[in-house]
Amino acid sequence: MDFSKLKPARDVAIIGIGSTEFGEHWNKSLRELAGEAGSKALHDANINPEEIQLLVGGNMSGGMFVGQEHGSGLFADYLGINPTPSMRTEAACASGSVAARVGFMAVASGMYDVVAVGGAEKMTDVPGDTATSVLAGAMDQENEAFHGLTFPSVYAFLANRHMFDYGTTREQIAMIPVKNHKNGHLNPIAHFKSKITVEDVMNSALVADPLRLLDCSPISDGAASIIMVPADKAKDYDDDPIYIRASAQASDSLTVHDRRDMTTLDATVWAAKEAYQRAGLSPKDINIAEVHDCFSINELIAYEDLGFAKKGEGGKLIESGEVEIGGKIPINTSGGLKAKGHPVGATGIAQLYELVEQLRGKAGKRQVENARYGLAHNVGGSGATVVVHILSNER
Amino acid sequence: MDFSKLKPARDVAIIGIGSTEFGEHWNKSLRELAGEAGSKALHDANINPEEIQLLVGGNMSGGMFVGQEHGSGLFADYLGINPTPSMRTEAACASGSVAARVGFMAVASGMYDVVAVGGAEKMTDVPGDTATSVLAGAMDQENEAFHGLTFPSVYAFLANRHMFDYGTTREQIAMIPVKNHKNGHLNPIAHFKSKITVEDVMNSALVADPLRLLDCSPISDGAASIIMVPADKAKDYDDDPIYIRASAQASDSLTVHDRRDMTTLDATVWAAKEAYQRAGLSPKDINIAEVHDCFSINELIAYEDLGFAKKGEGGKLIESGEVEIGGKIPINTSGGLKAKGHPVGATGIAQLYELVEQLRGKAGKRQVENARYGLAHNVGGSGATVVVHILSNER
Repeated sequence: MDFSKLKPARDVAIIGIGSTEFGEHWNKSLRELAGEAGSKALHDANINPEEIQLLVGGNMSGGMFVGQEHGSGLFADYLGINPTPSMRTEAACASGSVAARVGFMAVASGMYDVVAVGGAEKMTDVPGDTATSVLAGAMDQENEAFHGLTFPSVYAFLANRHMFDYGTTREQIAMIPVKNHKNGHLNPIAHFKSKITVEDVMNSALVADPLRLLDCSPISDGAASIIMVPADKAKDYDDDPIYIRASAQASDSLTVHDRRDMTTLDATVWAAKEAYQRAGLSPKDINIAEVHDCFSINELIAYEDLGFAKKGEGGKLIESGEVEIGGKIPINTSGGLKAKGHPVGATGIAQLYELVEQLRGKAGKRQVENARYGLAHNVGGSGATVVVHILSNER
Repeated sequence: MDFSKLKPARDVAIIGIGSTEFGEHWNKSLRELAGEAGSKALHDANINPEEIQLLVGGNMSGGMFVGQEHGSGLFADYLGINPTPSMRTEAACASGSVAARVGFMAVASGMYDVVAVGGAEKMTDVPGDTATSVLAGAMDQENEAFHGLTFPSVYAFLANRHMFDYGTTREQIAMIPVKNHKNGHLNPIAHFKSKITVEDVMNSALVADPLRLLDCSPISDGAASIIMVPADKAKDYDDDPIYIRASAQASDSLTVHDRRDMTTLDATVWAAKEAYQRAGLSPKDINIAEVHDCFSINELIAYEDLGFAKKGEGGKLIESGEVEIGGKIPINTSGGLKAKGHPVGATGIAQLYELVEQLRGKAGKRQVENARYGLAHNVGGSGATVVVHILSNER
């Protein structure tokens, strides 16, 4: 498809961001997390709640996690912005990014000028095996979960196959969570702020061979929010708005066994192609990226699918150090899903939050110098949904 | 808010519709229902699956009903349209209408030219009390459901209060399901095609005083779908496209006890006001309407909130016969949620399906003569989310 013929009627900018700390919030409910992130974003944008014209909230499974569907109504009500219309989107772990896409289209369409977009998930209020079983609702219930597959085992397939096909080593894969914890250590809102070593990863408990505990992102509570306005009006609100240069998405089979190639997320390749085309950029133009490291192997695969490494050479890229802060293409400066945490519905928005901090030059000790283009890559399930956004501090 | 300043960049038209029969589909899963409705809409629009550029599907609780979240990926995959991006929306029983709003914004934004929108729910594969408990996920879990409230009891509050405040009679309320079954009798895809009498309603089992079994819409399986394109291009696809003249939405408190007035759904009033303003119409211009009769009383309240009757005079309107086919403003010609059925995620799209059939002049024995403007009114929860669409066969 030629996306150059299908341009948004208006460009869109981000003028505010907010996030809770990610972690185990035993004293905060789903609505309280969403409310906290939303309030912080309003404060950051320096606007009043009444100015919001539409709310879009990503949430994967309020129903199964806390018995609460109708997140749309819940979030608007708790933020005190009735009668402002409110929508909930769901696309498994890409729910937040899909919310961002709906917010983007809402502003681009001309129907709304000030849109609050958020993502929230309350995951820790159930036993650990229940959380895994809820998350399995993101895979094919009839053809995968019913037969005993869990997400760690799906991604273990991908890891084994990548090691077999390309000689990727267990140590290379382990270097990814090590880097992400190193970055999370610098992020005040990260779930895990501890540093770890390759040895720690290799000696952690085996979850699904070859993946070990420290290859797996955690079950987290958290919420994040951003405020969008038309790019033409952004300077009225913010001296340094961040522009959404592309919002792209693609689908692939829900089951991993239906894929063309288990070591490629085709939906990432497609969504990235659309994003680069819409933004008029190529992978080498990207200065920083937040990618979906739900399991270590998925970040390595993303390097290749997003065009940062050649196919099969993701292992070499992590070994080169170029994905560290200070390298050519720092990846997951926030700590990623692994260290920052992965409250699934919030994750896509949290990625955009980090890019905005970086592109504003406000990322503190994590700051990447002279970053101009940032890419966010958010995966639903084992790759059935992939969303890619490209942001820039230049219009 | 002055919506005249916030116009969609492009007008949007509907060029195809499809629906399963509503009812108990023991032999069809969630994805099969969605696939059937989607295929029928494609056939009706005379387009190929590859032409779809975005899919948006409303589904309230695949998670709690059948353990399947990630409906976006599921529906795109089953329809065979990968890598086309796909989104799921949720706003309780208004999930379908919110999907339609996202589809509308997607086309209006200029980012997509051909968008398939659908709604689906598989509700009968659980015990009856489980279905009621899943549906209670649409109310406030912490402040209502946890304390034992169910939806029949919420709407019973509204009925009692309306009878108390305005002298509305039990018989007037009973006339609503009677009319809707009369219409459903003429609708080949209705869940219930049987006619009933006021006496039948009054003698049916008491569910939540004063509401009885025949006041309550059923638990149904079903799916419906529509295809949207820019209005400017609609004639390339369809000689008689139907135009979306307004897509409007409002929020209210999630709990019924927080409302200003229990006999008014303020979100209906607000959404209707926006819809009339965006369309440049008033209630008297509307020729037909599909309204959200999840319980009989809610249709009566909708007459008032949508401006078809004065406050307190909904009972008089149903008694007048003007809401019957052949009357001044026929309501729920499809049979409504009561007789057509209420597979919650599908309901909003099913309402648009009926309006398109009517506005095309293809509603068979249910046909309303010379209908030009049709209104759809879809409620989430007890009124925390309300969506109002206005369609027309004239641009």
